[in-house]
Amino acid sequence: MKLHGYFRSSASYRVRIALGLKGLKAEQAFYHLRKGEQRSDNFLKLNPQGLVPALETDDGNVLTQSMAMLEWLEETHPNPPMLPKDPIARAKVRAFAYVIACEIHPVQNLLVLNNVRALGHGDAEVNEWARRTNYEGLAACEALLAHEKGPFCFGATPTLADICLIPQMGNARRFGADVSGFKRLLEAEAACKNVKAFADAAPEKQPDAE
Amino acid sequence: MKLHGYFRSSASYRVRIALGLKGLKAEQAFYHLRKGEQRSDNFLKLNPQGLVPALETDDGNVLTQSMAMLEWLEETHPNPPMLPKDPIARAKVRAFAYVIACEIHPVQNLLVLNNVRALGHGDAEVNEWARRTNYEGLAACEALLAHEKGPFCFGATPTLADICLIPQMGNARRFGADVSGFKRLLEAEAACKNVKAFADAAPEKQPDAE
Repeated sequence: MKLHGYFRSSASYRVRIALGLKGLKAEQAFYHLRKGEQRSDNFLKLNPQGLVPALETDDGNVLTQSMAMLEWLEETHPNPPMLPKDPIARAKVRAFAYVIACEIHPVQNLLVLNNVRALGHGDAEVNEWARRTNYEGLAACEALLAHEKGPFCFGATPTLADICLIPQMGNARRFGADVSGFKRLLEAEAACKNVKAFADAAPEKQPDAE
Repeated sequence: MKLHGYFRSSASYRVRIALGLKGLKAEQAFYHLRKGEQRSDNFLKLNPQGLVPALETDDGNVLTQSMAMLEWLEETHPNPPMLPKDPIARAKVRAFAYVIACEIHPVQNLLVLNNVRALGHGDAEVNEWARRTNYEGLAACEALLAHEKGPFCFGATPTLADICLIPQMGNARRFGADVSGFKRLLEAEAACKNVKAFADAAPEKQPDAE
């Protein structure tokens, strides 16, 4: 397998964590998003949408969309599981993951922030947009864990919820969101820090980190 | 089951389609989003995030996030399937669905458009934001189907891809996006129109439609 990504891309980070949790080794290729390398001819041949990550499988398929890659990894490499067995519990883990993947992340990514900028807004307003999106979204995530046992988001082992949470916590801090009140999220983050797959996937550990 | 939604909410619309495809009957409750009824005490008890849809299951659980509901429905009511069997094919269907659920829909929903408005922009700029988001996102969706057989997005039967596509096509037109060049999306839409579950789930057929 070969993962095409970028050290700071949250979606690439999710897939790096999941590959590690599954004990899978993947070659990596890196594209500098701010320099527009994801729009190079070579990458557009793999993913015409020009978005990282893209995952080349061993049989030559190219998968796009990090959440689809995570589900594919879970289906093809079920152990250790990233989702509980009970359908209601799975739905709760996925709902948490989707608050991040469908509500927070898309509204504060580079493309959207550039759109805000294109409407005539400067750094302060753009950053406030991203800060608030992260803060309010993570507040919703914290509420979803009110009755869930730790130390991870949903119990004793990491799930899709933690895989989506950890990259988003990094974004939230980068945009100045005050996460200090999110006790359960911080507990889950602390638990993940002790898991090698999470530690190895951190942006600052990647060869393209700046 | 009881689906708490709003006739025009795309995410509620997705779940209405899926319930119909699975042959399930669910009671419905409606909340007028523009009047803020999703922030009423009654609804916040169900979903503290104050977002529709919410799905009350027969055993009293409350599910949130439409994409989590769709996966739950697929897991608990596998027939007829909304995803193919082959893992790579499933990943491709999900990737298409996530382009809509994680890239288009969140960037043009009411909350984000209100944020654009709060930055001092009027109807024309807000509408152009939403139009462009729909147009560019659906162009990516059309490209994903270049090598997929019809008449539905991915073959002879509707999948999660169609379930996400149909509501989004409605939004795209409402914001003035020109979808006439998206031949495969239009083909899939035409095929869905002949499926009762899609027809019955249409916003204009709901009791709260205006």
